[in-house]
Amino acid sequence: MARRKQLYEGKAKILYEGPEPGTVVQYFKDDATAFNNQKKGTITGKGVLNNRISEYLMTRLGEIGVPTHFIRRLNMREQLVKEVEIIPIEVVVRNVAAGSLSKKFAIPEGTPLPRSIIEFYYKNDELGDPMVSEEHITAFNWADPLEIDEIMAMSLRVNDYLSGLFLGVQLRLVDFKLEFGRYYDEEEEEPRIVLADEISPDNCRLWDMATGEKLDKDRFRRDLGGVEEAYQEVARRLGILPESGPRDVQGPSTLQ
Amino acid sequence: MARRKQLYEGKAKILYEGPEPGTVVQYFKDDATAFNNQKKGTITGKGVLNNRISEYLMTRLGEIGVPTHFIRRLNMREQLVKEVEIIPIEVVVRNVAAGSLSKKFAIPEGTPLPRSIIEFYYKNDELGDPMVSEEHITAFNWADPLEIDEIMAMSLRVNDYLSGLFLGVQLRLVDFKLEFGRYYDEEEEEPRIVLADEISPDNCRLWDMATGEKLDKDRFRRDLGGVEEAYQEVARRLGILPESGPRDVQGPSTLQ
Repeated sequence: MARRKQLYEGKAKILYEGPEPGTVVQYFKDDATAFNNQKKGTITGKGVLNNRISEYLMTRLGEIGVPTHFIRRLNMREQLVKEVEIIPIEVVVRNVAAGSLSKKFAIPEGTPLPRSIIEFYYKNDELGDPMVSEEHITAFNWADPLEIDEIMAMSLRVNDYLSGLFLGVQLRLVDFKLEFGRYYDEEEEEPRIVLADEISPDNCRLWDMATGEKLDKDRFRRDLGGVEEAYQEVARRLGILPESGPRDVQGPSTLQ
Repeated sequence: MARRKQLYEGKAKILYEGPEPGTVVQYFKDDATAFNNQKKGTITGKGVLNNRISEYLMTRLGEIGVPTHFIRRLNMREQLVKEVEIIPIEVVVRNVAAGSLSKKFAIPEGTPLPRSIIEFYYKNDELGDPMVSEEHITAFNWADPLEIDEIMAMSLRVNDYLSGLFLGVQLRLVDFKLEFGRYYDEEEEEPRIVLADEISPDNCRLWDMATGEKLDKDRFRRDLGGVEEAYQEVARRLGILPESGPRDVQGPSTLQ
């Protein structure tokens, strides 16, 4: 393969120019960081798993009508996505108190929230990704009010769908982070907001419904061990690791 | 005077039961605190000045139709106000970057903002008054969406009026904090949102238009000296210290 121009290197991914205009290759690294880069490490195989998990979730979301940047997976560590203008806001959707929200409001982790809460953080490592409100987003022109409305509506749909999907595999979707971008389609006048980045145990909190065991990046953040295994377990439950052996499927044995 | 029941002691004020039901006496102390109580001190005469300044500003705001809790000043340090249910949100309106916003977004103090920005903070000393968004306010039921809309609209009116008023006395209204309460009028079914607490150099940033000199609590926070004099100067410019001598009023000498 010809050498490709690197567009951007993030903490967990590298973006390269895609094979045709308007496309980008997203390469998933095994690097892990936490607490705004203060903690660094490697989770062996994470990139391969997140590439698969994000492919799966983005594809399913696309099928229910949530527009995403995802085009297709290219290989073990790469996927082809649409080139978008990233909106510099991290959208966090929370269903259960955990992490920074628990700390901020002194609410014990695991407390169900009165309703799902959407938070916005300004994507800026130097400033420590500060929490912002719609007021800051519109005043500093990071997104306009209509875009925020669209982002919030899409985030709630993603939350509904993924909460159901994960419940189906005995995982509680505690909270998760999304990013969005503006996709400029040649045939349309206005850019379209699409779901971008990735959805994986790197940016979701997933707790086993029965045991409460954490199957996400908190295992790395909090030195709980078994990090690789947790990511594998999420992929396994979603049924996207066929190469690692047949899934444990209940046959319709009770049906006549 | 008969001993009155103390209802609440805050950092700068004490609230006592009022002389008739539905009223409260607000007593202004000279105590000053900053950085969530980490810094404490006394500003001699502050209580007297803030009582006068807040009386003046609340009265003017009432005249333009902004409902407030203010009834009348009782004496040097006390004013009578309506009993309200305080909404536990501090509303900050910013016109120019300063203080925590400058720090958070690395914007130098004094930079005009693209537009006025409203911020909400959860009034809770133990938690350090964390910044919150409408999402938190409505999810935790601190106020409902209609109340937030009303609070934002009132805050913008207050900002317009006070920006003009202070400009008229050569002061730039950089930012300020408001609090609101629910006033339960016997004759009305629903409570009414009214402006509560106080408006004074304790919760406004006021910079001299010509020199940029700070005439507000930042003199205390940042150990700039001349704290009492700054509060006096604000009162003097607003024309509410008649006892300290005649104001320097330009007579209509050019008129025939």
